[in-house]
Amino acid sequence: MTAPASTVEELTAQRDRARQDHADLVARGLRLDLTRGKPSPRQLDLAEDLLDAQAPAVSADGTDLRNYGGLQGLPELRAIFGDSLQVPVEQLLAAGNSSLELMHDALVFAQLGVVPGGERRWVDEPEIAFLCPVPGYDRHFALCERFGIRMIPVPMTAGGPDMDVVERLVAEDPRVKGIWCVPKYSNPDGTVYSDETVRRLAAMPTAARDFRIFWDNAYAVHHLGDEPAEIADLLGLCAEHGNPDRAFVFGSTSKITFAGGGVAFFGASPANVEWWLSCTAKRSIGPDKINQLRHVRFLRDAEGLREHMRRHAALLRPKFDAVDKILTSELGGTGLASWTSPAGGYFISLQVPEGCARAVVAKAKEAGINLTPAGATHPYGDDPADRVIRIAPTYPELPEVEQAIAALATCVRLVGTEKILADLNS
Amino acid sequence: MTAPASTVEELTAQRDRARQDHADLVARGLRLDLTRGKPSPRQLDLAEDLLDAQAPAVSADGTDLRNYGGLQGLPELRAIFGDSLQVPVEQLLAAGNSSLELMHDALVFAQLGVVPGGERRWVDEPEIAFLCPVPGYDRHFALCERFGIRMIPVPMTAGGPDMDVVERLVAEDPRVKGIWCVPKYSNPDGTVYSDETVRRLAAMPTAARDFRIFWDNAYAVHHLGDEPAEIADLLGLCAEHGNPDRAFVFGSTSKITFAGGGVAFFGASPANVEWWLSCTAKRSIGPDKINQLRHVRFLRDAEGLREHMRRHAALLRPKFDAVDKILTSELGGTGLASWTSPAGGYFISLQVPEGCARAVVAKAKEAGINLTPAGATHPYGDDPADRVIRIAPTYPELPEVEQAIAALATCVRLVGTEKILADLNS
Repeated sequence: MTAPASTVEELTAQRDRARQDHADLVARGLRLDLTRGKPSPRQLDLAEDLLDAQAPAVSADGTDLRNYGGLQGLPELRAIFGDSLQVPVEQLLAAGNSSLELMHDALVFAQLGVVPGGERRWVDEPEIAFLCPVPGYDRHFALCERFGIRMIPVPMTAGGPDMDVVERLVAEDPRVKGIWCVPKYSNPDGTVYSDETVRRLAAMPTAARDFRIFWDNAYAVHHLGDEPAEIADLLGLCAEHGNPDRAFVFGSTSKITFAGGGVAFFGASPANVEWWLSCTAKRSIGPDKINQLRHVRFLRDAEGLREHMRRHAALLRPKFDAVDKILTSELGGTGLASWTSPAGGYFISLQVPEGCARAVVAKAKEAGINLTPAGATHPYGDDPADRVIRIAPTYPELPEVEQAIAALATCVRLVGTEKILADLNS
Repeated sequence: MTAPASTVEELTAQRDRARQDHADLVARGLRLDLTRGKPSPRQLDLAEDLLDAQAPAVSADGTDLRNYGGLQGLPELRAIFGDSLQVPVEQLLAAGNSSLELMHDALVFAQLGVVPGGERRWVDEPEIAFLCPVPGYDRHFALCERFGIRMIPVPMTAGGPDMDVVERLVAEDPRVKGIWCVPKYSNPDGTVYSDETVRRLAAMPTAARDFRIFWDNAYAVHHLGDEPAEIADLLGLCAEHGNPDRAFVFGSTSKITFAGGGVAFFGASPANVEWWLSCTAKRSIGPDKINQLRHVRFLRDAEGLREHMRRHAALLRPKFDAVDKILTSELGGTGLASWTSPAGGYFISLQVPEGCARAVVAKAKEAGINLTPAGATHPYGDDPADRVIRIAPTYPELPEVEQAIAALATCVRLVGTEKILADLNS
């Protein structure tokens, strides 16, 4: 490979500057963490009233919530979340404090029982597989890996997973039993599924009669801007297209009230809900209804929920703006990186030159900046192009976000220019 | 069969009186429920302070409990329960609101993963079986049934399961993977396992290398009298006898604070705990630590827990005493029934003449008294002798308990005398 001497000289100068900047960074001894999508303490403060006195613990219909029972969860709370999760209240269940638990349990129940429409337990199949749009959420992939479910990556587009690929794979292979979807402000790209993507997911023929869409609507109300994204109604479309039992919908208040003390939701068709309750009835005599009541009293109604989320947005928007601004000023026009500017959710996805993501994360670590491991956004931790870095700007305070992103940009400049120079010399 | 005419006449008179009493009962149109072991509203009132303001939600070591993390549960809470559950604090985990969930999940994790000491997943075994001391807890049996685990009944003795039977079955059959135990104030007999029983359980050779004791210590601190029962330290004895990984210990605050908003516990050997955490780490980013903190602040310490349980006992003892008194006055000396007088727990077990339990429950239902179905105390709902009726006196207020037990006694007299007369005539 050859290049004009002036370009090589320029690149070399850029690399040398980046090396010096990185050395200075390391010398500063920063300790910053951009790894996980945790709410910040100031966001948690927004829900502090949730801790207040809540007696009497009685539901609208007079039920004593302190006692056993109520497997479906508190109807008043389900009513608040029905619209935003796009699930009719009678098909929406309120559970414990983690939607990840519900996704895990859905896989367990499908492995050890027979889902509606299925012919046998998934453990009795020689092999099963899930489609995994990439980049995606590492904890989804970890669940598949734990249960020996083969993962098939599917590329993401601006409107969601590449549906040509999805439709082909599910049509031809009965071992493909499911797909992971984060349909709104996806983790980590911030992608909002287009109406056409949702419609095609609902309508596509599948070789497996017990195919399921794991619809992790984790960021249903987590808008950053003034125009909340709307997605099509998956459950309704599934029913309309003759596949009523295709979708499992998940949601939670983990990033609404308290990540360590919220409520999770499961929604699906009537047949799926009946099946789910037949499984959970053996497991529990009911969820923590008192915590659900606290949420009802704190959020009040759907408008109260929206209002509360606007307060979150007011705290989060400056952080997302800062990331975009710093990346633009440090890396804009260099050709060394591109990144997403999501309108909601918890993450920004940074794309670096092929083969550079791991090296950038390693260089950042040397400078005290902890990033999610490169590859975590892909099944088996393997991003074949080694390009994607997930940025989680929500937890640190704004000055720390700024420091960390500036440092990250330095690492991208260093690794990127070194890579180009090495390519030129090879 | 023959009998002196005087006896037949006497029995006939008793039966006729019982028939009249039952007809009167039916006419009264009672609506009473003795089915489930729920705490009464007055017991729940004892924990009302649990609802009070709890800010700031910070643990002793400064952790912000509102956020993600802390998979093992709050150390301060585990410290309060370590002694009563006989589990070292570092081997005790605090989880969600239901110990039944943890037992379910233990079976799931063992089916879909390999427990320490095991060679393969339980789903990959052609068949597995659990020993079920009878009478026992219907929800244990329901879990086995759900997962296709064959249940082998083992008779209870005054000191726990008949260990000669247990030792023989586990020694000869590698398919026997576990045993259900409620070691203190067992459901429904109120039996307290003797030290010798616990020692033999810990020491016995088992054909299955991955044999597990499911030690549901549901009533660890639920004493009725002034002399709390003590049981031997199963975990310690297992370790001592070279079987450190044999026991899974379960407990909860469901019948201490709120049945609908408590905390459950899992305790085991270090290897088991590590295995458990490797399973749950995929399922959740941590339990509801705020509810755990509420429990710490409410119970304060082990002495606070004991004090709180004495208040429960003060509410429960009169109900248990009333059952014993009414059964003695109505059925004592008739030879028609025997019953347990437990020193703790939630249940009384009533034994009626062979072949009569279902009929008694049916007659009670006619009179508006709802009892746990006869047979529920046995695997597959089948009490072969049709003798055992579980009485749950905790939930109704005292006058209702008295009414219901008097009515139950009438039904026993009716069905019992009819049965004896029928036997005489056959």
